[in-house]
Amino acid sequence: MKKKGILVVVSGFSGAGKGTLMKALLKEHGEQYALSISATTREPREGEEHGREYFFVSREEFEQMIEEDALIEYACYVGNYYGTPKSYVLEQMEAGRDVILEIEIQGALKVKERFPDTLLLFVTPPSAAELENRLRGRKTETDEVIRSRLERAVEEAEFMESYEYILVNDDLDTCVREMHELIQAQHLRTGKSREWIAKLKEELRHL
Amino acid sequence: MKKKGILVVVSGFSGAGKGTLMKALLKEHGEQYALSISATTREPREGEEHGREYFFVSREEFEQMIEEDALIEYACYVGNYYGTPKSYVLEQMEAGRDVILEIEIQGALKVKERFPDTLLLFVTPPSAAELENRLRGRKTETDEVIRSRLERAVEEAEFMESYEYILVNDDLDTCVREMHELIQAQHLRTGKSREWIAKLKEELRHL
Repeated sequence: MKKKGILVVVSGFSGAGKGTLMKALLKEHGEQYALSISATTREPREGEEHGREYFFVSREEFEQMIEEDALIEYACYVGNYYGTPKSYVLEQMEAGRDVILEIEIQGALKVKERFPDTLLLFVTPPSAAELENRLRGRKTETDEVIRSRLERAVEEAEFMESYEYILVNDDLDTCVREMHELIQAQHLRTGKSREWIAKLKEELRHL
Repeated sequence: MKKKGILVVVSGFSGAGKGTLMKALLKEHGEQYALSISATTREPREGEEHGREYFFVSREEFEQMIEEDALIEYACYVGNYYGTPKSYVLEQMEAGRDVILEIEIQGALKVKERFPDTLLLFVTPPSAAELENRLRGRKTETDEVIRSRLERAVEEAEFMESYEYILVNDDLDTCVREMHELIQAQHLRTGKSREWIAKLKEELRHL
């Protein structure tokens, strides 16, 4: 069976450890995955690189991408555009790589609507207390920021059931393994093998 | 997350290697799985044991099981009843074991209707030619029997798309691993964690 890549959307609470999880997954199975890089109109922050964290584009360029239907999804957030360029995602899937989009819930649902075969994963710490611990443990953020992240988590939790699978990020190694196995299992979905099944049926009839 | 077992239905062409696959899976991960044993009214064949291959019961006993809704599904085949006793399946699932039913397509669809969370797997050889090879390789069956199995396969293939996942049994070890990972991944399905999600939401609101 020829394997075309799968589109995987990963969302989760701020503090769930999505970044660490992605890094570990890519480190272990880099040949199998491609991480989608978003385009944005916001200014690069210190240390950020064009084509690594984001594709930094002008408002005009972004609006042209919208017009040309060159984005899988996009949203406006605090006055800046953020979106997922389509060509890279489709190229990588065609090459057999599973493409991971790390995006917010609203974007995730839009992607799923447009590409129903998308796999939606939600990453969460093992408990609310642990989420708070992790946010406080960073020590880089004010109480106010932590408070607002926790309030956001309450809202986001309402959408958890729109996701197909829940990844509990307790032990990182376990979580990476589960995520990898889960995504690879999707290659066996009947829907991914329609052509192969049609061919098999044809062969069976001609035996 | 407390893990309740998953109900897994395995079907596939005669000659796909389901029996070998189950044996290998149970051998490697016996603690995680329970194989459901069917009840039947047919006579035991040489070497078959009550409670190992089948529960051999009388027609009266079987009809009483039907009446008491003690079967997950049942069918009549060449004048004999075959069915899946419910109590064993539910007990094993409650104990956290994933229960595997190896049944025919019609039974599989009935189980799915009654227990929508059931995972439906279809096992197939890598090609029609390989199916024929395997059937001929057994050397225990007449040409006529082989012919009728292949004709049956043509009919069964029409239902492949009712299954959620297709397991191509080419290399046995690969197939066992894929089957195991695929079933274990289902434990992460959002639908299996509804209570856990509700608890998390509650905790988040009270931080």
